[in-house]
Amino acid sequence: MVKEKVLVEISARHIHITNEHLAVLFGEGYKLTPKKDLSQPGQFACEEKLTVVGSRSEMKMSILGPTRKASQVELSLTDARTLGIDAMIRESGHIEGTNGCKLVGPKGEVILDKGVIAAKRHIHLKPEDANRLNVTDQEIVNVKIETPERTTIYGDVVIRVRADFAAAMHIDTDEGNAAGINGTAFGEIVK
Amino acid sequence: MVKEKVLVEISARHIHITNEHLAVLFGEGYKLTPKKDLSQPGQFACEEKLTVVGSRSEMKMSILGPTRKASQVELSLTDARTLGIDAMIRESGHIEGTNGCKLVGPKGEVILDKGVIAAKRHIHLKPEDANRLNVTDQEIVNVKIETPERTTIYGDVVIRVRADFAAAMHIDTDEGNAAGINGTAFGEIVK
Repeated sequence: MVKEKVLVEISARHIHITNEHLAVLFGEGYKLTPKKDLSQPGQFACEEKLTVVGSRSEMKMSILGPTRKASQVELSLTDARTLGIDAMIRESGHIEGTNGCKLVGPKGEVILDKGVIAAKRHIHLKPEDANRLNVTDQEIVNVKIETPERTTIYGDVVIRVRADFAAAMHIDTDEGNAAGINGTAFGEIVK
Repeated sequence: MVKEKVLVEISARHIHITNEHLAVLFGEGYKLTPKKDLSQPGQFACEEKLTVVGSRSEMKMSILGPTRKASQVELSLTDARTLGIDAMIRESGHIEGTNGCKLVGPKGEVILDKGVIAAKRHIHLKPEDANRLNVTDQEIVNVKIETPERTTIYGDVVIRVRADFAAAMHIDTDEGNAAGINGTAFGEIVK
């Protein structure tokens, strides 16, 4: 029997922003400009970029919409080192105790006192996907990604189940490069 | 029985250079200035840096000595993307068919027509280490690296055996970050 595989998507560095911070950075009443829909329903990449300032350097990053309850910078540990920010590995939204940074927009600046993370690798699934793949919400699994030169099994992958998710594994650019992913890739859950 | 583990070392981007290219880049008769011995006997990081120029950007990289028979730039795939160079995943020295770049030094420039690679992950071992670990030269193994948030099993790891090697697994910064390595790490060979 051929085991079902999950699409692997590589997340480049990006920013989630609150309405309040958006107003400071781009001006009162500003609305994000959707550029491209993402695989997760309702999520989109925006035309807007911000400059993330660390102790060592700075970097432009795109905003992902819609706005959220907390601002958050998601980057790779390579990015974090380049910027000079000590980023913790966290699930999105779990930012208590993480480090912050300065965000610079066209109309203003914001100092985040927390929110810079390297995303913990995870798989988005609908409940019916989870049933079929025999996994449950918050379960930790291993995922094998086969490539010509850098086959890798990633452990510590968090399963996240929600009706409005689309089935996809998300890893960052370090993880994509470490596995030698070049183009479309799929992963097999191996417990 | 506790299985023996191998030290994992993370190689940052670096350059190996020929005597001929060294003379062009730094001037006739120039000698490399050792800065720090590396784990492999006879290998050392140098004070000298070069600018590697790609189609998209440029980056300073240290030279590792001693000089070699072929010039070679070893970088991560993250670096390669930043620079705009399509780097192939290759064992060190296996540069036929790879892409090149421009190197800029204080006294001159060199156009490499090949030699930019992302190193294929590998383990250096002495013959007695290989015997003890039950592996042979050029064997491909898997290595498990356990970390708090990003445990990873790397496949496609090449065993390299030579009397003048010191036991160490070498991975690049993408691979180190993808495994969440922070400080000293060890890997377990799992076949």
